Amino acid sequence: MLNRRWILSARPRGRPTTEHLHLVEDRLRPLTNDELLLKNLYISLDPATRKRMDEADGYLPAIPLGGTPTTTVLAEVIESRHPDFRAGEIVTSFGGWAEYSIVSPDVMTARITATPDIPLTYHLSMLGITGLTAYFGLLDCGRPRPRETVLVSAAAGAVGSLVGQIAKLHGCRTVGIAGTETKCRRLITEFGFDDAILYRELDTAGLAARIHQCCPQGVDIHFENVGGTLLDAALLTINPGARIVLCGLIAGYNTQTSPGCQNLWQVIARSASIQGFLVKDYLHRREEALASLRRWLSEGHLKVREHVETGIEIVPAAFAKLFDGSNDGKLMIKMASEPFDRLNT
Amino acid sequence: MLNRRWILSARPRGRPTTEHLHLVEDRLRPLTNDELLLKNLYISLDPATRKRMDEADGYLPAIPLGGTPTTTVLAEVIESRHPDFRAGEIVTSFGGWAEYSIVSPDVMTARITATPDIPLTYHLSMLGITGLTAYFGLLDCGRPRPRETVLVSAAAGAVGSLVGQIAKLHGCRTVGIAGTETKCRRLITEFGFDDAILYRELDTAGLAARIHQCCPQGVDIHFENVGGTLLDAALLTINPGARIVLCGLIAGYNTQTSPGCQNLWQVIARSASIQGFLVKDYLHRREEALASLRRWLSEGHLKVREHVETGIEIVPAAFAKLFDGSNDGKLMIKMASEPFDRLNT
Repeated sequence: MLNRRWILSARPRGRPTTEHLHLVEDRLRPLTNDELLLKNLYISLDPATRKRMDEADGYLPAIPLGGTPTTTVLAEVIESRHPDFRAGEIVTSFGGWAEYSIVSPDVMTARITATPDIPLTYHLSMLGITGLTAYFGLLDCGRPRPRETVLVSAAAGAVGSLVGQIAKLHGCRTVGIAGTETKCRRLITEFGFDDAILYRELDTAGLAARIHQCCPQGVDIHFENVGGTLLDAALLTINPGARIVLCGLIAGYNTQTSPGCQNLWQVIARSASIQGFLVKDYLHRREEALASLRRWLSEGHLKVREHVETGIEIVPAAFAKLFDGSNDGKLMIKMASEPFDRLNT
Repeated sequence: MLNRRWILSARPRGRPTTEHLHLVEDRLRPLTNDELLLKNLYISLDPATRKRMDEADGYLPAIPLGGTPTTTVLAEVIESRHPDFRAGEIVTSFGGWAEYSIVSPDVMTARITATPDIPLTYHLSMLGITGLTAYFGLLDCGRPRPRETVLVSAAAGAVGSLVGQIAKLHGCRTVGIAGTETKCRRLITEFGFDDAILYRELDTAGLAARIHQCCPQGVDIHFENVGGTLLDAALLTINPGARIVLCGLIAGYNTQTSPGCQNLWQVIARSASIQGFLVKDYLHRREEALASLRRWLSEGHLKVREHVETGIEIVPAAFAKLFDGSNDGKLMIKMASEPFDRLNT
């Protein structure tokens, strides 16, 4: 059985292009015990994958040269050598930028229950790793209390937009930072943020002044997806005891030397904390989060925006959109026809 | 009554000198209700005071131009308008780089009980803010567990040397970083560290390699007094769930643009946390810490090194030693004759 997959052929210095990624086709090996063969229906494209294209290990081990970038996928089990899964089931898992993936199920692999009222793609966005990231990052690391102010960077992004909505459900004032006027409008009208800040063309001091304006009571929780100037500005606005949830640092992913965080002294000055966050540490509590997320969704409290492109060939071009902000919601690639009829009846 | 005191006459860009500090003499104003007039016996010189010479507020509000730098002092109460204090008592308090200070007692002001077995200066070092900083910073923010590895920067310094000794008492492996071979030797022979690292002339990668060598199990707690390259290197060596106690960032205090922390992504990668620490948040628990510190001291478990210079005129020159590391222990200025005879009999 043939499998088309992207491989990392050279390590990018800046943004990855088709110079660094090649589409290859090879034969799938047979499964060994406990493995699953997955046919990827949708694959998620995530900023963190860029970090893994560098030589040094980061969030996750570096992708070896010649290896296939891995990501969360929504897939159909084609063949199972694992007692807990059967062919035909739909799972989310940690697969590859590929038509098919062979995986050994661990905490990243979970059977999903497709229901007619929930689009299948939601299991890769609001009800997938994206939603779990927002849920545990905000609630466990951020520990929001009513009337606190929550600041979110990349707030129109997949995780950020959910963080704002969940914070609002917990009685917080929410302020989002985004990169275009359209996104800023959307933060308020679509995702219910109390205020929005356009960061483009502002330096650290200018951005801090804008944050102060929009957060007159100071910032109690800062949910950081970006880093760089945004983090430095946010640090200038935090209250004593503030919690900074460090979820991503996309500003530094395409640069060899990042500008570096200048204002760490504010963490001392405000007795604040920075908590690094990896969603994988929380996946054993997946069901708790999903129960809440499903309830909020059914009550109409959560909105999600998805940006779906089609076909494995488009992956590098679509991936690039994450880094100029031109994607419009949770970015994913539709790899194959959904087995909609079978699932949604 | 005349009072000689240093004032900040200009904001330094780099290291402060007598260009930025002037010794003036003026008349003390009368006390108002609840105030104390203190005669400073010893004043502590601390790196954080440099940060307060900048225009922007930092750990504590900036020192205004024309204002006297404040610091912890060991002082005799000369006159009291406060019901809890009487003339003749010895206190630690937050006073000034001055012969006399007028203070309104708050959590920073505490009566000390001088005893013949404990040198008076210890109340400004091991049993003063220095000791409380090491105690609460390590135990409350670091939460050491037996067999964990604790890395300490500026380990031969006043706080660092105590952190290492307290960590050892909690069953940890301790590794200290210092700037001279003499200090590194002292870490092991005098302060009981398991290993010592000389950081001079090492870049981030080189220093990280040395840390890995000395901490083969990785770093569980990093107690940071310095920042810059030392923090970046330490971040490359932390274990999952590591706690970084951010106590000081002396590397950046004399520079307008600090190099900035490059390796914050490691905080995500290792699900680590950075906890900013101000000892003033813990002073309501002073007695708990002092009871432990006194016990360890009496049992011979704690050693402290003090560097005492004499006379108010020497303050700026002595202060400069903090920033080239040429002080040799907890730096303090002896301002007046100790009332030893009265106290120690």
